[in-house]
Amino acid sequence: MNWNDRLKKVEANLKGSFYTTNLTDIFYLTGLKLSRGALLIQKGNSCLFVDTRYTEYATKNAAVQVEDLSFEKIQKQVSVKPLYIDPSDCSYKEGLELVEKLDAQAHTGLNPIHLVRAQKSEKEIRAIRKSCLLLKKAYDHIRKKVKLGVTEKQLALEFELFARKNGAEKLSFEPIIAFGANSAMPHHRSSVTKLKKNVVVLMDLGVVVNGYASDMTRSFFYGNVSEKIQTLYTAVKKAQREALTQLEIGVPVRAVDQVVRDVFSSYGLEQHYLHALGHGVGLDVHEYPIISALRSPKEAVLQENMVVAVEPGLYLPKAGGIRLEEMYLITKEGPKKLTV
Amino acid sequence: MNWNDRLKKVEANLKGSFYTTNLTDIFYLTGLKLSRGALLIQKGNSCLFVDTRYTEYATKNAAVQVEDLSFEKIQKQVSVKPLYIDPSDCSYKEGLELVEKLDAQAHTGLNPIHLVRAQKSEKEIRAIRKSCLLLKKAYDHIRKKVKLGVTEKQLALEFELFARKNGAEKLSFEPIIAFGANSAMPHHRSSVTKLKKNVVVLMDLGVVVNGYASDMTRSFFYGNVSEKIQTLYTAVKKAQREALTQLEIGVPVRAVDQVVRDVFSSYGLEQHYLHALGHGVGLDVHEYPIISALRSPKEAVLQENMVVAVEPGLYLPKAGGIRLEEMYLITKEGPKKLTV
Repeated sequence: MNWNDRLKKVEANLKGSFYTTNLTDIFYLTGLKLSRGALLIQKGNSCLFVDTRYTEYATKNAAVQVEDLSFEKIQKQVSVKPLYIDPSDCSYKEGLELVEKLDAQAHTGLNPIHLVRAQKSEKEIRAIRKSCLLLKKAYDHIRKKVKLGVTEKQLALEFELFARKNGAEKLSFEPIIAFGANSAMPHHRSSVTKLKKNVVVLMDLGVVVNGYASDMTRSFFYGNVSEKIQTLYTAVKKAQREALTQLEIGVPVRAVDQVVRDVFSSYGLEQHYLHALGHGVGLDVHEYPIISALRSPKEAVLQENMVVAVEPGLYLPKAGGIRLEEMYLITKEGPKKLTV
Repeated sequence: MNWNDRLKKVEANLKGSFYTTNLTDIFYLTGLKLSRGALLIQKGNSCLFVDTRYTEYATKNAAVQVEDLSFEKIQKQVSVKPLYIDPSDCSYKEGLELVEKLDAQAHTGLNPIHLVRAQKSEKEIRAIRKSCLLLKKAYDHIRKKVKLGVTEKQLALEFELFARKNGAEKLSFEPIIAFGANSAMPHHRSSVTKLKKNVVVLMDLGVVVNGYASDMTRSFFYGNVSEKIQTLYTAVKKAQREALTQLEIGVPVRAVDQVVRDVFSSYGLEQHYLHALGHGVGLDVHEYPIISALRSPKEAVLQENMVVAVEPGLYLPKAGGIRLEEMYLITKEGPKKLTV
């Protein structure tokens, strides 16, 4: 990996210079895994700041200049003004200090690093495919263990052990395995609830392979379920199909969520749609762009080689929920499904 | 657990009201696991704010009033002024908005929630002991697998599988297993380096049991090591003993780190001490108080029933490092070792 290529892409989009302490962004641009650090990005003159724990590691491995992490050192390095920070990406305390000591300004508009990170390279896409493949294997493994009396926690543990033994560095997030009424809570924690007959089973799972996350949700019926729940399923399936028609380069991500909302409205179920439609997936399981008619900025559009998870869902309190989530690659030829 | 007891303790320490979006703090005070939310703490009138994904879950389970997460709703609930926020605990963007829309002020001094969280209840101490016990078992398990040719990654995977199968919900952090020169980097990532003869082996490990973390580092010699490395070990061992003499109620945490620095100075090795001496351990593996002569606030002192990890270490670039880390409970009778 030529890290400088990524850095140059970000530099090319900059007005002024850009300062970040986001550790995943720093990893993306330098290849270094730090628990603390800062990166100053400016054309041809970027600089990494680390504390003494990382001096040896960073000096040896970084393709950019390395300095001690202090306001004095940072100030010396800033040669292009204005200096921008992402106000969502540093603490209030840090922001106030950067404004006071370095005359930094809050960046408005899309984060220039996230725009580059969103468009995956071929190598990244291969890594994500690998992650999706292992996810499916681990899902198939626990799918066979869905039996009367099994607990959500037991399946979650089985999933994790299988994934780790078969090459996952870690899980993308704690498995969400929800039986029956538990599935009505989108972020249910896997519990000791035992599987009974005639309920929804919802599994939201992900693994990390070679640094890249995957994310997938499957919902199915264990036995027979009420008509209400069946209608949820039909509506979510319809929404998923409609969303797919929107996954084209240049489409504002808000519009993708809007078609899903329209489908749910047509069923009179919009109030049971409780979250955003989806999100980018890569080094982080949730990364730019969030796909939401309510929360996405207008200027966020689908770009070539973005990888997004699309996860329409409907939730009936005390009854159950349905969520269907797949990952797609955005290409000139339309969306390509990555989850298998 | 009577969650309101914890909330009342925090309320009792407050001047004004306090607003937080720290999800671990919210869990500590309400028992709710959220991925987004806010808690307004004010005497007898605290209120939890969640988005629609969590409305059902929160209303059912929270011991405090629950409202929708919006500035309008929050503003309506604030009845005690001034409204404080922890400037280290929210984003710059969020801080600016809270100041503008709710007239919030940056809290100075120690975070009132963290002060309460730092003093563990008997139940919490039992949970932490359990976490330490499992950590030791998992350590012993991989200790037996330290053999010529084994890789750091293999040991890390073995550790994780053993821990998860035996009751760990997850690991406290990615295992740090470092052979030879790798141990000179305090935050080395377990790699495909194979074990050779006559090197240092450093293992920094932790597990989470019933929500509570543990954290321990062992360093030992595989075969014979250079005199330089042996001296590091002697100095770190001495520092550990000296630090122990300071673990008394009322001692400023800065002072604990200072005695360690003094020991290292007496060996002429202070420049090889690259990190803070330690940290609180509980729901988070790193929590208040950080124990550092350089970074801890003056007013941070050891309190009864604090649980702290003490981890002096010395690192010689390209040669190797030694770190010894144990966890202690602060009591009237002096420190009690929790790691086994």
